[in-house]
Amino acid sequence: MTHTLHVRVYYADTDAGGIVYHARYLEFAERARAEAFRAAGLPHADMVRAHNVMFVVRRIELAYQRPARLDDVIRIDTTFSAAGGASLELVQKFWRDSDSLAVLELGLGCVRVADGRPARLPAHVRDRIFELKQGVS
Amino acid sequence: MTHTLHVRVYYADTDAGGIVYHARYLEFAERARAEAFRAAGLPHADMVRAHNVMFVVRRIELAYQRPARLDDVIRIDTTFSAAGGASLELVQKFWRDSDSLAVLELGLGCVRVADGRPARLPAHVRDRIFELKQGVS
Amino acid sequence: MTHTLHVRVYYADTDAGGIVYHARYLEFAERARAEAFRAAGLPHADMVRAHNVMFVVRRIELAYQRPARLDDVIRIDTTFSAAGGASLELVQKFWRDSDSLAVLELGLGCVRVADGRPARLPAHVRDRIFELKQGVS
Amino acid sequence: MTHTLHVRVYYADTDAGGIVYHARYLEFAERARAEAFRAAGLPHADMVRAHNVMFVVRRIELAYQRPARLDDVIRIDTTFSAAGGASLELVQKFWRDSDSLAVLELGLGCVRVADGRPARLPAHVRDRIFELKQGVS
Repeated sequence: MTHTLHVRVYYADTDAGGIVYHARYLEFAERARAEAFRAAGLPHADMVRAHNVMFVVRRIELAYQRPARLDDVIRIDTTFSAAGGASLELVQKFWRDSDSLAVLELGLGCVRVADGRPARLPAHVRDRIFELKQGVS
Repeated sequence: MTHTLHVRVYYADTDAGGIVYHARYLEFAERARAEAFRAAGLPHADMVRAHNVMFVVRRIELAYQRPARLDDVIRIDTTFSAAGGASLELVQKFWRDSDSLAVLELGLGCVRVADGRPARLPAHVRDRIFELKQGVS
Repeated sequence: MTHTLHVRVYYADTDAGGIVYHARYLEFAERARAEAFRAAGLPHADMVRAHNVMFVVRRIELAYQRPARLDDVIRIDTTFSAAGGASLELVQKFWRDSDSLAVLELGLGCVRVADGRPARLPAHVRDRIFELKQGVS
Repeated sequence: MTHTLHVRVYYADTDAGGIVYHARYLEFAERARAEAFRAAGLPHADMVRAHNVMFVVRRIELAYQRPARLDDVIRIDTTFSAAGGASLELVQKFWRDSDSLAVLELGLGCVRVADGRPARLPAHVRDRIFELKQGVS
């Protein structure tokens, strides 16, 4: 089960090299993850409110393949790839039409809001991620 | 009494027009204000900790005169211009050598951290701002 | 004739005060202007390509009224308010439902891409802005 | 040979989780790389001017270990680890005092400014990187 978001490139996203600044892919990816969680019935705010836990980014691997430019529309495909006791793995792919722009592998950690210490994923989050991996929409 | 900070322009600050993105001046200005408060003996964190109040930006007037570019060193002059019961006015000027790049007039409001409601400036903050305006370093 | 864009607030837009960072309103406003120009049949890229001119931000007046927070959906209403020989004035209003969050008045200058010197607005741009102000959609 | 830069954390760098937003580490790293190149006698602008080539980011691996917060001073240690025909590898470590905050491994590609196609590293750049790895300051 893959969630798709389209984002437009504006001046704020670009740099003097004429291309999208490399760090902005992480902002696009955050937007796509937030919407993927929401679409899966797991809005992040609910997790904070109901369980006092939140996700933080633990690990990033990002390969840039082609530059994106002003006015481009970028498609971001977000897939949940694994859920551990206190962590979540996702793959996020960036496309312009059929051209692959970049691939991001990302590890999230679940932590307590109060002190940032690792916390178990709420059971319904793990179950829902498992369902999504089984293709349950 | 004017506080001066120098900042370098990096790719992150620029856009595809080849110049510093207009919103980044506000980030440069925030850095300069934070250092101006610190230099005046009024670090913002102390105000939050000791008085449970913080500053929020209420009003901005920003005139852009000349573009800045990658690798430029920008000098930012920060001057406290007025202190009200729950507000503070500053002027921040951006220079590259003797060329004026931009002028920012900015109004800060003092609010309670807990609920964002207006709060009186702590007395020692008002007194210190008054001293600075009198030229006491 | 007012153009409307909705944007969602993500972590990238917020700061440690728990609210949308004040400079991010200018990024939201840029997105809204780009879409307003596009909707009016005046995509910025065409102006660059056909006339070798572009808009740069000359002047900003921004009043913040209420804070926005993570997950909020902000509506941005963009109105062209005046067109001069080499300049354009816009008003952009930020709303969350019926609450006014901020009001931005913004002056754009038309400049030559090659050297950044002021340039006359292309005639069809001025004509189209005039039409929009007359209520021609 | 390791280059060191200190950066302060301001509100612009933080998010509503109360910590430095994960993408901002890449901006800090860009500042540190630019200064490391400059300190090595290889300012990026010279490469663009003299050789019509520039570096683009090809690959990022970033592990986050501890969060950074408002007002923290982060030390960034930048080390050139390898130079290929058209590429460069660096390691950048983020510290707060003796606490390791994050480790970034980063691959840069050398490309032609005109069309973004891969280009050989200018000989003096490769020679200088080689010297730095040998401990020549």
